[in-house]
Amino acid sequence: MTKTDGIIEYVLTLSCPDQPGIVAAISTGLFEAKANILESQQHDDPSGRFFMRVVFALQDQSELYEWLHTRLEALAAQFKMTWSLHNRSKRRRVMLMVSKMDHCLVDLLYRWRIGELPIEPVAIVANYPKEEYAHIDMKDIPFYYLPITKETKKEQEQQLWDVIKETRTELVVLARYMQILSADMIKKLPGQCINIHHSFLPGFKGAKAYHQAFARGVKLIGATAHYVTEDLDEGPIIEQDVERVSHRDVPEDLVRKGRDIERRVLAKAVRYHVEDRVILNGSKTVIFAD
Amino acid sequence: MTKTDGIIEYVLTLSCPDQPGIVAAISTGLFEAKANILESQQHDDPSGRFFMRVVFALQDQSELYEWLHTRLEALAAQFKMTWSLHNRSKRRRVMLMVSKMDHCLVDLLYRWRIGELPIEPVAIVANYPKEEYAHIDMKDIPFYYLPITKETKKEQEQQLWDVIKETRTELVVLARYMQILSADMIKKLPGQCINIHHSFLPGFKGAKAYHQAFARGVKLIGATAHYVTEDLDEGPIIEQDVERVSHRDVPEDLVRKGRDIERRVLAKAVRYHVEDRVILNGSKTVIFAD
Amino acid sequence: MTKTDGIIEYVLTLSCPDQPGIVAAISTGLFEAKANILESQQHDDPSGRFFMRVVFALQDQSELYEWLHTRLEALAAQFKMTWSLHNRSKRRRVMLMVSKMDHCLVDLLYRWRIGELPIEPVAIVANYPKEEYAHIDMKDIPFYYLPITKETKKEQEQQLWDVIKETRTELVVLARYMQILSADMIKKLPGQCINIHHSFLPGFKGAKAYHQAFARGVKLIGATAHYVTEDLDEGPIIEQDVERVSHRDVPEDLVRKGRDIERRVLAKAVRYHVEDRVILNGSKTVIFAD
Amino acid sequence: MTKTDGIIEYVLTLSCPDQPGIVAAISTGLFEAKANILESQQHDDPSGRFFMRVVFALQDQSELYEWLHTRLEALAAQFKMTWSLHNRSKRRRVMLMVSKMDHCLVDLLYRWRIGELPIEPVAIVANYPKEEYAHIDMKDIPFYYLPITKETKKEQEQQLWDVIKETRTELVVLARYMQILSADMIKKLPGQCINIHHSFLPGFKGAKAYHQAFARGVKLIGATAHYVTEDLDEGPIIEQDVERVSHRDVPEDLVRKGRDIERRVLAKAVRYHVEDRVILNGSKTVIFAD
Repeated sequence: MTKTDGIIEYVLTLSCPDQPGIVAAISTGLFEAKANILESQQHDDPSGRFFMRVVFALQDQSELYEWLHTRLEALAAQFKMTWSLHNRSKRRRVMLMVSKMDHCLVDLLYRWRIGELPIEPVAIVANYPKEEYAHIDMKDIPFYYLPITKETKKEQEQQLWDVIKETRTELVVLARYMQILSADMIKKLPGQCINIHHSFLPGFKGAKAYHQAFARGVKLIGATAHYVTEDLDEGPIIEQDVERVSHRDVPEDLVRKGRDIERRVLAKAVRYHVEDRVILNGSKTVIFAD
Repeated sequence: MTKTDGIIEYVLTLSCPDQPGIVAAISTGLFEAKANILESQQHDDPSGRFFMRVVFALQDQSELYEWLHTRLEALAAQFKMTWSLHNRSKRRRVMLMVSKMDHCLVDLLYRWRIGELPIEPVAIVANYPKEEYAHIDMKDIPFYYLPITKETKKEQEQQLWDVIKETRTELVVLARYMQILSADMIKKLPGQCINIHHSFLPGFKGAKAYHQAFARGVKLIGATAHYVTEDLDEGPIIEQDVERVSHRDVPEDLVRKGRDIERRVLAKAVRYHVEDRVILNGSKTVIFAD
Repeated sequence: MTKTDGIIEYVLTLSCPDQPGIVAAISTGLFEAKANILESQQHDDPSGRFFMRVVFALQDQSELYEWLHTRLEALAAQFKMTWSLHNRSKRRRVMLMVSKMDHCLVDLLYRWRIGELPIEPVAIVANYPKEEYAHIDMKDIPFYYLPITKETKKEQEQQLWDVIKETRTELVVLARYMQILSADMIKKLPGQCINIHHSFLPGFKGAKAYHQAFARGVKLIGATAHYVTEDLDEGPIIEQDVERVSHRDVPEDLVRKGRDIERRVLAKAVRYHVEDRVILNGSKTVIFAD
Repeated sequence: MTKTDGIIEYVLTLSCPDQPGIVAAISTGLFEAKANILESQQHDDPSGRFFMRVVFALQDQSELYEWLHTRLEALAAQFKMTWSLHNRSKRRRVMLMVSKMDHCLVDLLYRWRIGELPIEPVAIVANYPKEEYAHIDMKDIPFYYLPITKETKKEQEQQLWDVIKETRTELVVLARYMQILSADMIKKLPGQCINIHHSFLPGFKGAKAYHQAFARGVKLIGATAHYVTEDLDEGPIIEQDVERVSHRDVPEDLVRKGRDIERRVLAKAVRYHVEDRVILNGSKTVIFAD
């Protein structure tokens, strides 16, 4: 973890079996390290599991940081915690994957460019050549054209994995990437791969969701951002939203309205993730939203 | 159709295969009958079917009405129309069916009492005795206690049908009536029976929908009002709405939030129906909303 | 505070100037009293003020409670806290005030009756006689008819104050009570009087808000629940919501749609208050929503 | 109006004092011209004014078009109509004006590029130099840098007017253009200039609206798209939307959430305008939304 002069802000997230004394132990540890708590949210799940997110400011002295880290390790052992401590100024290294429809990619890049989305895009991966995205200002983010066919899927995923490792990607965002990752690939990215599903799950799964919605005559359509798991379209949901539709909307209108929902739902989910606002709770999520 | 002195307002709804000249024929007919069009909405469905709703004011002279009716009959034959002409001041005769949870019943009765919902409640039918609803001011709406068991279902539905006929019910509203009507019963009420499904269809069908939603960790829950058809939970959707939920909401919270959505979605659907704003389009609906 | 055998749940709310160590001190105190924290939310306001709400379970032993209370008193002095400790099973004593439009009253009573809204209604006060509300099942909640004219306002408010004292009212809810309380009256009810304003504040203040909205041609209308202060319609906002309207909506439609927003916004605000989810922050509120 | 072989689609919009026979006259005229009505919406305003939008397909024969045009002229005279007839394939010539914040500009250009927004951008006008927008792919849309100071306002507006005339601009979109147009300028663009106001009007007018909203502690913020009139921030409203905010949102968060609302509200308003879905009704609008 890099250190600079002055003050460093950290985000601590943790989960563990619930029991008395956790908050007291954590907050006393932080107090003794002279940390200043900036935000704190907790959740006691009915399942008996406890979740916590604390943002705090620490003086930039390695002794303090190390003391605190050691203390947290001890508490983690005592309370059987899963935990992470993240320097807030270190942006997550994010890979953006895209197919033909680029509205989510364009939106994420825009939010990043104006400083709204604190990510470091380290790769754009597409199964179409770069010319397809000629209108997009990718700055100097490396672009990887990884075409895919049924026959080459295995090789393509090997290439993809090489890029992930090379670029030290910490989060893969499927920004309307229209290929299904293999179970092997998904296993390598637990809680590190976010997909935008063009539907309000679990309503209409799989392909052509808006056409299914049209055929069914629903009055609302939606989109769902979720972590990718081996159960296709069943991963833990991070964010969902809807828009009203009517009998006047043909499938093309649903697709148009869908684009708006998709890009804002995905952007929100990515922001929640990189700001350490999401903690996995089995097949569900705890979202410490702002 | 009752006639009073002065002016009478009618709602004409129709659907037919689309072809040029329909609007010209209808509006010329209305003009020649000296009708004053107050509202008019049309819809050309991509399926090639045309839908129309016209509200107009007519002088209360039986010659005019009869002339117009004859004209409409001729147009209906010419254009292969399905149509209905409804005196706006004649309130639909509505049966309200309820089980233990009475939030939708209470809400519909309240809206009716303050004059917001133009219905004439002719029967309240419950599978619990009247004492269960002691706190509700039913005015002089007849109450029918029709208990039901697996064994007595057939007899109960016969009783129900007798009440429907006796009371000349035109619309049956299942206001959280927790029994499934038989296919025979449903067939007798085509487009005349509205249900509120405690879920955003087609997400979670059937019973305990909110518990399913909790288990899945969705971020929005909803409710759906639809016409009852033999395909359980698959009838044409009239209205839907959602509310945001979070990891902090236990199933009881979802049920609470659900009550709010259910009552407003059902009330809207009933209003749309009795104001002749809904036209069936196969397994879907055209809603000429206000 | 009543004590029963077993476990008692408390809600602690506090605010104070922000400084390191508050959470550690509070949570350590709770831990030493063997309290089990059930919910906890904090907020560090940019103004430099700290807010906290903790729900915890305590064994029903007066020594423990007294020890904790003493400890909290000491911490309050040390950190300059404003604080309150509330036995969760003790329902707030609530007065409901109403004029002609009773949709909010009916809704609050319904939510109370089915056990959704944890209040104890101790008085219904109206400036219309009880016959006006004949259809409402008030159970045995005392009803006070306090008519008011320009001339009798002072006397009426004296009577009102007598009722408030007699009934030991802790919260006054203006459920569409269409009279303006005097500055003297308001001063006696700081943070203890909630109003529902039939508009999305600060858009259209004062009377006939929906008519103003109609004249302006807005595309959304809303309602606002707020604490009553001497600045009419300017008190701290607790909750707001909106609904979409169109050119087809005449003022009567806005009033109808408004009723739906008003009753759900007011119910939410009352619930937030009686569950100690609202802490005042100057002219604003901190809402620890569920 | 250009003519091509085959079929041409037109949008007819009109408004006039309400009286019987308008729809019959229009639809009979269209029928006799062998036009096929594709969409039709009407509105009878309580003010006594009638509004209509009809989309129809006409065979591409100049005799038919001219016959229809003559007929419509005669009807316009008879019914005192304000009307317009627009070839749907002819895209409106649109000028986009922008200052430092470019989220609306980027969004509108994206929607145009993917074919969602049927406009023809003929000019981008900014009071900052082109380098400021280096990341935006403007294709070959002419860019005009028109800096402005208090002293040069008059000259700048003269230049602006020259560009408007040169480019035959039909609609000016103020896409977060942070300068106030002079009354003289506005008079030249009646119903032809759309602004996005970064607030839910009439709540917080003028500058720093989100900071005002923060200071007031509102629970929802919004944006408003409206036609520009001499009454600053009081022009006819086309579209509005809101998002939920909380005590945790500092002004920067409101600005961030605001960007999302602004861009979708402005895009909707522009689409409504160029699809002839907006008809002015005094200080209000009739929106024939899809």
